[in-house]
Amino acid sequence: MFPISFGSDNHSGIHFTVFSALQKVNTGFCPAYGDDPLTHDVLHRLEALFGGDCEAFLVMTGTGANVLALQSLISSFNAIICAESAHINVDECGAVQKCTQARLSPIKTSDGKLTTELIEPRLLGDRDQHHSQFKIISISQSTEYGTLYSVEEISRLAQFAHNNNMLLHIDGARLANAAAALGVDLKTMTKDAGADIISFGGTKNGLLFGEAIISFHPELTSNMRFFRKQCNQLFSKMRFISAQYEAYLDKDLWLKNALHANAMAQLLANRLKEFKQIKITQKVYVNSVFAILPKAWMAPLQEKYMFYTWDEARNEVRLMCSFNTLEEHIEDLVATIRELSEP
Amino acid sequence: MFPISFGSDNHSGIHFTVFSALQKVNTGFCPAYGDDPLTHDVLHRLEALFGGDCEAFLVMTGTGANVLALQSLISSFNAIICAESAHINVDECGAVQKCTQARLSPIKTSDGKLTTELIEPRLLGDRDQHHSQFKIISISQSTEYGTLYSVEEISRLAQFAHNNNMLLHIDGARLANAAAALGVDLKTMTKDAGADIISFGGTKNGLLFGEAIISFHPELTSNMRFFRKQCNQLFSKMRFISAQYEAYLDKDLWLKNALHANAMAQLLANRLKEFKQIKITQKVYVNSVFAILPKAWMAPLQEKYMFYTWDEARNEVRLMCSFNTLEEHIEDLVATIRELSEP
Amino acid sequence: MFPISFGSDNHSGIHFTVFSALQKVNTGFCPAYGDDPLTHDVLHRLEALFGGDCEAFLVMTGTGANVLALQSLISSFNAIICAESAHINVDECGAVQKCTQARLSPIKTSDGKLTTELIEPRLLGDRDQHHSQFKIISISQSTEYGTLYSVEEISRLAQFAHNNNMLLHIDGARLANAAAALGVDLKTMTKDAGADIISFGGTKNGLLFGEAIISFHPELTSNMRFFRKQCNQLFSKMRFISAQYEAYLDKDLWLKNALHANAMAQLLANRLKEFKQIKITQKVYVNSVFAILPKAWMAPLQEKYMFYTWDEARNEVRLMCSFNTLEEHIEDLVATIRELSEP
Amino acid sequence: MFPISFGSDNHSGIHFTVFSALQKVNTGFCPAYGDDPLTHDVLHRLEALFGGDCEAFLVMTGTGANVLALQSLISSFNAIICAESAHINVDECGAVQKCTQARLSPIKTSDGKLTTELIEPRLLGDRDQHHSQFKIISISQSTEYGTLYSVEEISRLAQFAHNNNMLLHIDGARLANAAAALGVDLKTMTKDAGADIISFGGTKNGLLFGEAIISFHPELTSNMRFFRKQCNQLFSKMRFISAQYEAYLDKDLWLKNALHANAMAQLLANRLKEFKQIKITQKVYVNSVFAILPKAWMAPLQEKYMFYTWDEARNEVRLMCSFNTLEEHIEDLVATIRELSEP
Repeated sequence: MFPISFGSDNHSGIHFTVFSALQKVNTGFCPAYGDDPLTHDVLHRLEALFGGDCEAFLVMTGTGANVLALQSLISSFNAIICAESAHINVDECGAVQKCTQARLSPIKTSDGKLTTELIEPRLLGDRDQHHSQFKIISISQSTEYGTLYSVEEISRLAQFAHNNNMLLHIDGARLANAAAALGVDLKTMTKDAGADIISFGGTKNGLLFGEAIISFHPELTSNMRFFRKQCNQLFSKMRFISAQYEAYLDKDLWLKNALHANAMAQLLANRLKEFKQIKITQKVYVNSVFAILPKAWMAPLQEKYMFYTWDEARNEVRLMCSFNTLEEHIEDLVATIRELSEP
Repeated sequence: MFPISFGSDNHSGIHFTVFSALQKVNTGFCPAYGDDPLTHDVLHRLEALFGGDCEAFLVMTGTGANVLALQSLISSFNAIICAESAHINVDECGAVQKCTQARLSPIKTSDGKLTTELIEPRLLGDRDQHHSQFKIISISQSTEYGTLYSVEEISRLAQFAHNNNMLLHIDGARLANAAAALGVDLKTMTKDAGADIISFGGTKNGLLFGEAIISFHPELTSNMRFFRKQCNQLFSKMRFISAQYEAYLDKDLWLKNALHANAMAQLLANRLKEFKQIKITQKVYVNSVFAILPKAWMAPLQEKYMFYTWDEARNEVRLMCSFNTLEEHIEDLVATIRELSEP
Repeated sequence: MFPISFGSDNHSGIHFTVFSALQKVNTGFCPAYGDDPLTHDVLHRLEALFGGDCEAFLVMTGTGANVLALQSLISSFNAIICAESAHINVDECGAVQKCTQARLSPIKTSDGKLTTELIEPRLLGDRDQHHSQFKIISISQSTEYGTLYSVEEISRLAQFAHNNNMLLHIDGARLANAAAALGVDLKTMTKDAGADIISFGGTKNGLLFGEAIISFHPELTSNMRFFRKQCNQLFSKMRFISAQYEAYLDKDLWLKNALHANAMAQLLANRLKEFKQIKITQKVYVNSVFAILPKAWMAPLQEKYMFYTWDEARNEVRLMCSFNTLEEHIEDLVATIRELSEP
Repeated sequence: MFPISFGSDNHSGIHFTVFSALQKVNTGFCPAYGDDPLTHDVLHRLEALFGGDCEAFLVMTGTGANVLALQSLISSFNAIICAESAHINVDECGAVQKCTQARLSPIKTSDGKLTTELIEPRLLGDRDQHHSQFKIISISQSTEYGTLYSVEEISRLAQFAHNNNMLLHIDGARLANAAAALGVDLKTMTKDAGADIISFGGTKNGLLFGEAIISFHPELTSNMRFFRKQCNQLFSKMRFISAQYEAYLDKDLWLKNALHANAMAQLLANRLKEFKQIKITQKVYVNSVFAILPKAWMAPLQEKYMFYTWDEARNEVRLMCSFNTLEEHIEDLVATIRELSEP
């Protein structure tokens, strides 16, 4: 029996409704690799959700979604600007470099967010054969620090990218959480804001596995399906991803799950603020709480709860909530902390 | 409602026992990326099944399993010998080249099987800096033509490989079917025969998804886990692959499914032989039947059944059976053929 | 002191006129990387030589010229059709795969020449996501067997390529020898015949080093200069390649050198035919003679002359002539053979 | 006629002695690709110069030397730590990423120099499958800012690297200038200081072209010759690089050229300090002077002299001296500046 986990939103399993959807399509025979009506239908629903005039692709993993979104738009001589903390920079074991052979140009930030002011000094050497050609600005929404770009901030980055002959990519592994937090629909936050290609993650928000890539330039990404196969992201029994996404879109399950996870993080943060020994280090927008804890608490807490240290030096930890985090989990943690906090 | 499919063993869904296993682990929280006891246990069971002194890795897709088995052992300046018909050569959109940057050196065969006589003339230029260095002989067991290597044939290829400073890889997407057909255990056919790295497929034999790589040289493949992440094959909610493999190993489900699929192909072949208009083109060992049909039958047959043309020129088709193919499906097909065959 | 060499046309040094050209530009300062008037001028002359409406690029090596011509036109999911004997397939240690990550699809031939009949059966799976997409037919003119495509044969291959949504690449490391042998100008044999991208080699024909790539689709190869830098083929002191090409173009030195080398090979072949123990195995068009010699002659011959065995099994050797091969070298060899041939 | 250049040390041509060496070997026939006695001899001399127990390789370009030194030691899942200003990071159009598929992890510095204090915080995630594995610390000696590591600083970095299971690479495109400035021999600054692989450049110091890679771990870099061919860096007429290096080593020409270039930069810096409108921005150790000039002077100066802006924002320029920079060139520049500086 595993303890309660605030370790990651992929420590959770599969949402009940999603699981039922798997069962529903587990019958008889079905064409493989996406050549079935359910997949076609789900792709159209995804495209409609993002405002049409776009093309959706279903892939298997979040790393795969990032790699493919980028690979479909760049050549090996291109450079991708991202935050130093970006998942593509530090958490994918160099998958982007492996597949695209391109250069990542990471920028240090305090909160995981890029700004045009941070990017502008990087843009040198355009069309000079000695330099990788900047082609993509890649942001995470929400970020790896649980922070958020406003719609205006995304628009500004998109416009800046386009003015500089670049494109805007959004790593949307937690796009649902961002939409839930901002209270805007997905289209407003992506297509309308000028994003060029995005992912809309499912795995961290209640699916067994499955991520959607939405390309707002189908004419530029027409080779996506070849890259998807080459990069080991074409699923044979595709109907089982499609069925999950169908359930995810039905009655806005994606949003409900995200709202719940976000609310749990707010609750958690609010309860933690009651302890003067704890310092919340990033404003809580979505489903993560970053906090500095007394070092002495770590051993007893990690016996009962799964969670990870984010910054060893100052004992900053990350506490993630998920679609299946319960108030009871949080109260259990708070009770344990209370015991530790009392002399 | 889809018609009966003889199109592919991945047109089938998930075996009932495997599906139940998914449900069983869909509870509470669990560490991700394989750091959980179920995964550890399943890996040990897999290693034991192949005779120990080996290391098992769970990955997501068959293409991924091939790419990683090869990537873990070669450098970009190496060459891989395979049959022209090999899945890695023609059905993976160049995934091996994409990830490894190495050279495939495909050899024409009549039945998908390599022999030392076919390979020997290729082995030129060893240690000459102008030539890719031959490092791997890659075979498929069973082959893409549904043919089989005997244990002796595998031994001979392995010994030849080792004598020439090469290693033997087996693409075992249908290794279960081969074991079922040969009536030998997995260890005898792989480790004992001298294979160096293999895959042991699950997706085509009743799993939702999941493939195992077994390395018989853990000391050579110690970087596998980095390549697995880089090549988009590390599954976050790993317990759900592990649970499937647990069910697959329990009571030899892998073997039962394979025996059934093979038996269905034998039945199908036997029934087809009753028709003088049909020519079986490859001896039937496992779960596929290759046959030349009258061209005029194609349209009416493909209205009712899914299956693919293998060789357009001579109207050769491939008919695949699977763990969920029923005698009734075959009788249904035979009845339809009977109608077509009668004047 | 080295013996006379029939080993390779790059066993020769630098033609006197070319060497003088190096000396002429070795003065003062000059912008690097091709940003100088001599380079601009030479590029224009090269473009004019090939009929204009094309773009010339200077690179350092023959392997580099092949890699870049292909890289500029393909993605990793593409396939390149070539003869099994092609330099890109067997003599570049997998450089094309290393840089492009694409698939080579080699076809067995008897004389190094591709035909539409040989290629057509390969063209399956177009637009199917499981297969590498065929994009290039690559031929060598003259071939690695010293054989030649007629202008009509090149036209036929180009038209076939274009009809199948592919492009024709010519590895022209010995394009000068081919033009000399066919008695046609370079434009007729390349642009007019429908070739899409070619190389026009210098190193094997009297230069210290330097190869020209000519793209007949500048709009498709606009990223060549980035790939050239990435693939280590951008020369810093470019004026020294340009000066060599200037000398190479002046008074058709490229043609004179090639005519001479070809004539020497004809002479050599004619003299060898006098010996009944020697069998010429390929018709001699350009500067190489392929011949089967008595095995017993090898040791005494290789003591006095450099040359390589081509096919060990039947003791076939390749004898290359070059711009600096003299009649005296041939007579010396023939005299030695005479001694060996007499009882 | 080109103006005097302070633009780059590769705006210079070929040193007279080196040119004569080219001429000396331009005779008769010679085995290609390095299989000749001169090359063997030169490699041994290079190895001796660096203290023996090492292996030297000759390649064509500086970018090629860096790519190959790194490629021979890393896999795609590794990371390379370098300064943000490193040539491999910003001036090679992503050649390292293209060839190695590995991750560059660049660190911001004020003077182009890495320290253990800057590197230590980066070393996270060792053996964690989510992160690229740090394998190389790469420094440039002298740096792109014309600064120098002392022997002690190199030792400290090497020891730190080894303590952390990493290796130290030195981009020595201007290693000669560094040795000249420090007054230490090459062995002391590299092998004795603990460097694992280095380059010893020739092109920027009087050669037509040619760079040497020195591996202090021949057992780790045994595949170098395959990578050299794959990465388009194997020169066919190798004797012409070897002859240049022979001349370069004879009577320490490499050192004399470097001493001269360094002395010219000192002279230039000293003369520029006479102008209160000019601010020297980096201490001058080797052959470059970084200085902020009045913006108004740029146009008139660049009419008469070639040189490049380094930092547009503050009008910082880089003035390079070379083996063929004369005092007269400097006096000419100073006279022009004097005119501009007077009202």
